[in-house]
Amino acid sequence: MRHYEDIVVGSKSSFGNYEVTREEVIEFARKFDPQPFHLDDEAAAQTHFGRLSASGWHTGAMAMRMMVDNMTANRQAGLGSPGIDELQWLKPVHPGDRLRIESEVLSKRRSQSRPEMGMFKARTTVLNQHDVAVMTMVSTGMIRVRNPEIAGG
Amino acid sequence: MRHYEDIVVGSKSSFGNYEVTREEVIEFARKFDPQPFHLDDEAAAQTHFGRLSASGWHTGAMAMRMMVDNMTANRQAGLGSPGIDELQWLKPVHPGDRLRIESEVLSKRRSQSRPEMGMFKARTTVLNQHDVAVMTMVSTGMIRVRNPEIAGG
Repeated sequence: MRHYEDIVVGSKSSFGNYEVTREEVIEFARKFDPQPFHLDDEAAAQTHFGRLSASGWHTGAMAMRMMVDNMTANRQAGLGSPGIDELQWLKPVHPGDRLRIESEVLSKRRSQSRPEMGMFKARTTVLNQHDVAVMTMVSTGMIRVRNPEIAGG
Repeated sequence: MRHYEDIVVGSKSSFGNYEVTREEVIEFARKFDPQPFHLDDEAAAQTHFGRLSASGWHTGAMAMRMMVDNMTANRQAGLGSPGIDELQWLKPVHPGDRLRIESEVLSKRRSQSRPEMGMFKARTTVLNQHDVAVMTMVSTGMIRVRNPEIAGG
């Protein structure tokens, strides 16, 4: 399994292929973000969105699915995240878009409070099929340390 | 309808009452964040989560629903958000928790590129039934300006 020690600062990865469907956009919005521009083309046309657009939280959730699938493929021992900085919703996401992720590890460090855990920061960009960045964020991930008894970062 | 001009910097609000259910936690996680601690009590017990916990993106989505319901109740002319800073997932969120929000407007300004839009920043905290903060963020909201022809902030 992939652990903290295997993370290389500066490494980049590219993965994911998420098809945004009208049904899923509306279903998510109905439940979690029922603003008109996330439910209806006509309402969205009254705004800068132009046409039906996914909730930003839905875009984040789609990104999370791609990241989890990638971690699973890499057998990465993830332990969740304490948070995110600089989350930006740059462009609308529309039904029919295909999303993918490019990610770069910015830094890593051992947890001071929990020796079995390490943290890393990654600049994560979600792009659509036109290679346009629709969302970006700096996410912090937590991951298991393979050999906690060995000190240092 | 509530517009940019009606926003008072420093104002605070308290709203929302979202019941976190086991079914919804698992359904969201299966679709968007299928990590073991978001699907299963036993797997979660192996981690700092302790027991089945909602995906952080699900907590954000539940918060968004409470915010949209509040905006609807206030007839607020929202136009989405360009992003979020300092999103922190502070404590696990478990089935059976009841979530609510406390929010404080930190600042506001007119959009330079779109005179019909204004932006505001709000410190938004999600609390559980024990008044423990489970999530916090500084969110930027966009809102219609009632009288765009009048300059100034």
